[in-house]
Amino acid sequence: MKKNERISIITKILSDHPNEVFSYNYFTNLLDAGKSSVCEDVAIVKSAFRIIGVGSVETFSGATGGVVYHPEVSTSEEVGILDEVAKLLLEPWRRIQGGFIYYSDILSNPRYAQNIGRIIASKYRDQGIEYVVTSETKGIPAALETARYLNVPMGLIRRSNRVTEGATTSVNYISGSSNKIKTMYLSRRIDLIGKKVLIIDDFMKGGGTAKGMTNLMEEVGAKVMGICIIFVTKLPVEKLVDNFTPLIIMDDDDMDGAGLKVSLYSK
Amino acid sequence: MKKNERISIITKILSDHPNEVFSYNYFTNLLDAGKSSVCEDVAIVKSAFRIIGVGSVETFSGATGGVVYHPEVSTSEEVGILDEVAKLLLEPWRRIQGGFIYYSDILSNPRYAQNIGRIIASKYRDQGIEYVVTSETKGIPAALETARYLNVPMGLIRRSNRVTEGATTSVNYISGSSNKIKTMYLSRRIDLIGKKVLIIDDFMKGGGTAKGMTNLMEEVGAKVMGICIIFVTKLPVEKLVDNFTPLIIMDDDDMDGAGLKVSLYSK
Repeated sequence: MKKNERISIITKILSDHPNEVFSYNYFTNLLDAGKSSVCEDVAIVKSAFRIIGVGSVETFSGATGGVVYHPEVSTSEEVGILDEVAKLLLEPWRRIQGGFIYYSDILSNPRYAQNIGRIIASKYRDQGIEYVVTSETKGIPAALETARYLNVPMGLIRRSNRVTEGATTSVNYISGSSNKIKTMYLSRRIDLIGKKVLIIDDFMKGGGTAKGMTNLMEEVGAKVMGICIIFVTKLPVEKLVDNFTPLIIMDDDDMDGAGLKVSLYSK
Repeated sequence: MKKNERISIITKILSDHPNEVFSYNYFTNLLDAGKSSVCEDVAIVKSAFRIIGVGSVETFSGATGGVVYHPEVSTSEEVGILDEVAKLLLEPWRRIQGGFIYYSDILSNPRYAQNIGRIIASKYRDQGIEYVVTSETKGIPAALETARYLNVPMGLIRRSNRVTEGATTSVNYISGSSNKIKTMYLSRRIDLIGKKVLIIDDFMKGGGTAKGMTNLMEEVGAKVMGICIIFVTKLPVEKLVDNFTPLIIMDDDDMDGAGLKVSLYSK
C-alpha cells in the first residue's frame, strides 16, 4: 500500500468514527505498516484537518497509544450554518395558523441534522457527556447526529406509554403549547444512573418540556450536564428552566408568523 | 499545501458528503492546486476506498467534470453488522411481556443507526431515490442515516395530527399490534408529487403500517421504489404488502420471547 493510500484510509476511518480511540496497532495491522510510518501518516491527517478547520486529531504515545478525532466547528462556520437555517424559517410558506412555524423538513434533512449535531457536539465536547437524551419526535435527527459525533448512545423519551418500551419511569409536565398536564416516559431498560447526560430538544417556549425532561433525568439518577434547544422563542423571557443553550431565537411579536424575526444565540 | 494533506482533505470532504457531486473547480480552489494534481489526488482516494471496501469514487470528465462518492457495504460486512444486531436481540433482558422485544436502544445507538443506514443506502443506491420516508418513532435514526448516505431529504409520517405540521394528508390503517384502525398523517408542506421514495420502518408483523405508508405515498402522488424494514416477524407468512426487503427475521414460536430465533435475510 502506498503512503498516500494509507493517509486516505486513516482519514476515512477517523472521520467515520468521531471521538473513538483507535490504537496504533489497529492501524499498523490494517495498513500493514510500521508504527513510525503510521505516526507520520497521522501527523499529516492532523495537519490537514487543522487546515480546513474540521477539528483536532489527538495522539497518545506509549504502550496504550492511540489516535482520536474530535470534530470541532469554528464560530464562523457555526454562524454560517445557523444563519442558513434561520433564513429558511422566515419563508412565508412555513407560517401555520396560531403562530407556529413549520420546520419539520429542516430538522429531518440529513445535511442540517448533521451540521446541527456537529455544532452541539462541538459545544459539549469537553464535558464528558455519556448519553444524549431527547424526546420524540422532531429533535431526534439532530440529537442522533450529536450522539454520533460525541460517540455516545441516544436515549429516547416517549410522549406516550408504549408496550415495546417495557416498564417505564414517567414524570408529568406542563406542555406550554396546550397548557395541559402531560406525561413523558423513559424505558427502565435504559440505565442512566450516575450518567452524564446532554438533553436536546427542537423547540422551547415556556420550557415545560425541558423541565419535564430534567425532572425525568433526576428520577432515573442521571446528571444533566446541559440542555441544548435548537429553536427558542424570545417570549416569555422567563422560562421554567434556568440553564439552557439555544441555537436560534425566534421573536414573533404578532404571533401569526408574519412578524417573525430570528437571531442567533452565541455564547 | 502538501499533496498528502490534499489527499486527506479530499477524503474528508467526500466521506462527509456521500452521493454529493463536487466539481473539480471546487477542489482546485479549496486546495489551491491545478486540475491535474487534483485528478491524481482523487485517483489515490478512489484506490484507497476500494482497498478498504467502503464504496466507489466516481469521476466525470469534461467541463462539468466532478467527483462523487457512493458508499457501499460488501455482503460480508453487511452480514457481520446484522449478525451483531441479531445477537443483541437474543439477550434475555430484552424480553417484554406479550412477546415483544425491547430494541429501542439498538436503533437509537448512532453506530448501529449509521451502519444500518449504510446497508440500506447501499442496497438502493442505483434506484434514483429522491426521498426517504419513515413513520415515527423508532425507525427515524436508521431512516435519517439512510437519507444521509443517499444525500436526499427524509419525510416524517406522524402517528397523530400535530398543529406544527400544518395541513396534513391522512390515511387510515390497521395496526397489527392492536388490531385497531389508526390514522397516519403527512404534512402537506412536503411535496412528494412524482418523487421516487424509499419507505423505511423498524418493525413489521402483519404489514398494516407498511401498507398504510404505501397508501399514503399513493395519496400524495409519490412513487414507492422500495420498502425496507429492519425487523420482520416470520409469522404471519402472508403480509399486507408484497414487495419489501427485511434485514432481520424474528421467529418467535412461543410468543414470549424466550424461544426467539433470529436470522438474516439476504437477497
